[in-house]
This record gives sequence, structure tokens and C-alpha cells, in this order.
Amino acid sequence: MATIGIDVGGGSIKGALIDEKNQIIRQCSRINRINRESDEMAEDMADIIRELTEDETADAIGIGLPGTVDDEAGVVVYTPNVGFRQYDLRAAIKARTGHEVHLINDANAAAFAESRIGSAQGADSVVVVTLGTGIGGGVVINGKLLTGYTGAASELGHMVIVKDGEQCSCGRKGCFEAYASATALVRMAKKAMEEHPESKMNELAAKDGKVGARTAFDAYDAGDPVAAAVVSEYLDNLAEGLANLINIFFPEVIALSGGIANRGDSLIRALEERVYPRTHGSAYALKRTKLAICSLGYESGMIGAALYAKSVTK
Amino acid sequence: MATIGIDVGGGSIKGALIDEKNQIIRQCSRINRINRESDEMAEDMADIIRELTEDETADAIGIGLPGTVDDEAGVVVYTPNVGFRQYDLRAAIKARTGHEVHLINDANAAAFAESRIGSAQGADSVVVVTLGTGIGGGVVINGKLLTGYTGAASELGHMVIVKDGEQCSCGRKGCFEAYASATALVRMAKKAMEEHPESKMNELAAKDGKVGARTAFDAYDAGDPVAAAVVSEYLDNLAEGLANLINIFFPEVIALSGGIANRGDSLIRALEERVYPRTHGSAYALKRTKLAICSLGYESGMIGAALYAKSVTK
Repeated sequence: MATIGIDVGGGSIKGALIDEKNQIIRQCSRINRINRESDEMAEDMADIIRELTEDETADAIGIGLPGTVDDEAGVVVYTPNVGFRQYDLRAAIKARTGHEVHLINDANAAAFAESRIGSAQGADSVVVVTLGTGIGGGVVINGKLLTGYTGAASELGHMVIVKDGEQCSCGRKGCFEAYASATALVRMAKKAMEEHPESKMNELAAKDGKVGARTAFDAYDAGDPVAAAVVSEYLDNLAEGLANLINIFFPEVIALSGGIANRGDSLIRALEERVYPRTHGSAYALKRTKLAICSLGYESGMIGAALYAKSVTK
Repeated sequence: MATIGIDVGGGSIKGALIDEKNQIIRQCSRINRINRESDEMAEDMADIIRELTEDETADAIGIGLPGTVDDEAGVVVYTPNVGFRQYDLRAAIKARTGHEVHLINDANAAAFAESRIGSAQGADSVVVVTLGTGIGGGVVINGKLLTGYTGAASELGHMVIVKDGEQCSCGRKGCFEAYASATALVRMAKKAMEEHPESKMNELAAKDGKVGARTAFDAYDAGDPVAAAVVSEYLDNLAEGLANLINIFFPEVIALSGGIANRGDSLIRALEERVYPRTHGSAYALKRTKLAICSLGYESGMIGAALYAKSVTK
């Protein structure tokens, strides 16, 4: 039988019907925007479920959400941008479709998918770090997702690495997210561009019409020394947080996703140089954590939500 | 049947025979010192096992060590102070006594004991943080100890919270341990005492003949404003690391041990004030992590090693 995975984002709500071989056999989506009414979004999700189950029965439905969920209670506790606040999504979907749903944080869904059928397939423990506007995280240990007592996801981006440092959107100062997200890289690039008008980054940004996460990396590739310093500082920040996560979890694999992860092998090599010397007891370690790039792309959220729902449905 | 728990420390190697009700029925110990030969220490452990099994059979034996162990391989990978380096302790004990042993990091052993029969009994997830010369950590999730792929323990003390901050003994800069261990508190107190000769801390230290972790807390209790600033800064550092651990694990309980934890309820209240506002999404949370003091004292290492061995022995 098939399963459904739904991925709720700020711009869209996407759904996929997935077969027993974990292949997507049908997809549909609805446009979303930030701060819509919760009931309206639930209605869209119900609509997606109806559409995907027109010709097919689904034996499990999972919904991935950008924030804290309590799957036991069926409640979306808090999604900062998409406006859910302690909303009983399970009841809302049940009332509209008769279906039971399971809830999962979107980064957790991505981690679960990568651990089951993606870059970390077969690994006994996996930490997935998504480098986007913020930093999301998911941890799978012995095949099971770490969700925590409070129902909250593993908020790896909100580990402070620079006490009293840069302001983070979460209210704390110095979070990993404030130093190693794409947003942080853009901030660092902008600062360097102001201080160094001669930097190639200014030229590239003018051409693109904006400073993006690629600006510093592209200028670095073109040999710009100012961009090289920005990239080096950024990689150092990223390595600091990743080394923390290794020292805490010692996972078999840490897999990265998000636009910056598109740098691929060159990113992994640059990080290995910086991360391993920071790993506790690395001089004597018998094995070491593998750094990898996520392989499932934007579909990982839907696939992971579906796989999770399947794994917890009796 | 009984089990044996052995706790290897820099000053002594302690062993206990534990009955089915987890009560210690017999104890013995040998003097230890840093940087002894590994074989000599193995001989002491074998001796302890022989002594404890004179009148009683042990069906599981666990050994807790202050560093990284690989229980799958039976190898002590690296203990910074006690001098094991990739030492096959399982084979060494087997050769001397015929017994199979299981290896566990000492902080993990303490965490396992607290989660089974101590301060966090019944909790589904527990993080134990030991505040001593360094900071040790143990994590139990759904009743299972987090040990990681590399066999390493959860080295919670070696999570950087102040990038490029104080030098840590591990080689990194700015570790939690370098800011919130008893050693860090003593460093902070000494600095304040130099800057403020009028501080009550100078008087107390002169009386004790040394600056200890208690110096700042005792002077604070006596109303010294300089000590109050030191204690406040220390608690802030501790809260920063604990909030990180909550944001990562969202455990049901975080339990503290070590000399500083003897401050008891007043410590917990002071930390609650500082930790909860730093917890991600705390304004909307349905439940929150409980902060607690470990209840098993110095025996937790032996008890935890024994319980762990029992849990993994078929």
C-alpha cells in the first residue's frame, strides 16, 4: 500500500503519494504564504490528501512542518514563520478527511529520509544539518528519530557557539545559525564588500542584483582574496558547530543539505580539514564520522514525512 | 545473580558487587595514580574481580573509565589522564580472570545509573552533566545509552560555547568545560580576587589554604558583591551550555553532579531562571525539561557500569 508525505513550507504545501519502493507516484501542491489562518492551511492539506487518495488508498500519512511538533498529542506546537501555535492539526485533518496523520519537524523528516534511502542509508547514526535561511537539524540514532520529551525537534541551529555573539532570530545571541546559515554568509559577505570595494564580490552582486550565499563562493572561485577570507571564516564557523555535534553524538555520518551543500566534494574536503582536528580524542580514534552531502534534494521532506508515518503506524 | 561494577579513576580503582536489587553487597579498591602502565591497572582490576567473586558468582562485569571506550571492540581508546591508549582491556581481563567485561565511559555510567535507579528514574530521556575538574556527560534516550558510532562517549564538555575563547585541555578553545567546570570557576574566582583584594573570597581562601569551587559560592552566601558577580557569570556560562543541550536533546531531565551540584535547590532555581528563557520555543512549549541534582553520589560510576554490563549481557 501507498503512503502520503506532506511538506508544509512558507511558500507552498506539497504532497506526494509514495509507493512501497519509496518512489513518488503522484504529486500535488497548494500555494502557501506566511501567517495564514491555521484552519485554511489544514483545509489545503485535507484537499491534497483527497486528491492523492482519489484512486489509491494510503495506509499512513505524515506531515512535515517548519517548527516544533508534538506527534504524541497531534499538535503543531510552534512554527515561527508559518503561523501555527498549539494547533491540533491531527484533529483538524481527521475532521476533514477521516484520516489519522503523524506530525514531524521538516528537518527531522529530511534526516529520516536520508538515513533510510539517501546519503546515510545503512548508517547506524546520522545527523543531518540543513544550511538555509536558518539551520535545521535532524538526528537518527539506531534507526530511530530523536524527537525529545517535549516533542521538540533537535534544534541544532540554536546551539550557541559564540556566547553573547551575533543576534539570532530565536532571541539568543551567538547561535550556530547566526554564524553558519546562508543568511550568516550573506551578512559576512556584505560586511567585507563594504570594507573592500575592490572585491570581486561587489561586481558579482551588481550583476546578480543581490548578495546571495553564492556571491562569496563564486568570487572565491574567481581568485578574489577578500572572498577567500569570508569563505574561510564561514567554513571555520561551520566546522566549529559540526565538531560540537560530533563531540556530542559521534554519529557515523553527518550529512549537509541546502544551497551551500551544492559545493559538494570541495566543501566536504575543506570541512574535513577543519572538523577532524576539533573532534575529541581524534588522534586515538579507531573510526571517524563521515562528512557527506544529502542526496534526496527538496523531495526529502515529503519522503521523510511519509517514511516516518509508516514507521510509527501500527 | 550478582553483577560487578568497577570505576577507574586517577586516584583509585573501585569495585562493587551488586545484588539483584541493585544494592552494593561488597566493595574493594586499589590505589591508582596517573600515567601508570596499562597492564598494571588491568592486573588491579583482575584482582578486584577475584576478590569480589570469592564467595559469589558474577553474571556481568562492567568497567567505567575516564575517557573514550569502544565496548564493541573491548578497547579503551583514549583516557587523557589515566594512561590507556588503544588498549585491549577486554582481552587483558579475560586472560587474567576468564571473565568477559563490558566497557563504558564513567560519565555515561553515572548517567545510566541515574536514569535507572537515581534522580531520573522513569524518565524517557536523560542528560547527566558532571561538573568537576572537567565536564563529563552521559545521555540516555528511551532507556538506551548514547554511545555513538566511534565508540566515543557524549563529550558534552567539549562543545564550544565561546568560539576562540579560553584554552581547553582538549586542544580546542572555548569549550563548555573551560567555562563551567569547577576548574573554570576557580579560574574566574582567582582573577576577581586579584582585581578585588577587598573581596571576602581572599579571606576565605586564606583560611582554607586554597581557592576551591566553594570559595566563590561561600563568599556569595556571606554577601560579598565581588563573589556574587563571579557566581552570576559562572551560572550564566553553565546555563548557556545547558540550554544548548536542551535545544539539541529536549530531554525529560537534565541532572547535575559534582561538588557544585551540592548547592542543591538553590542552584536549580538559579539555573531555571537562566536556562528556560534560552530554550527554543519555550513560550509555546507544552512541556519542559526538568533540571535536577543527581542522587547516587560517588557510587553512581560503579552501579552504572554494573547496570550497563547487565543490560548488554545476553
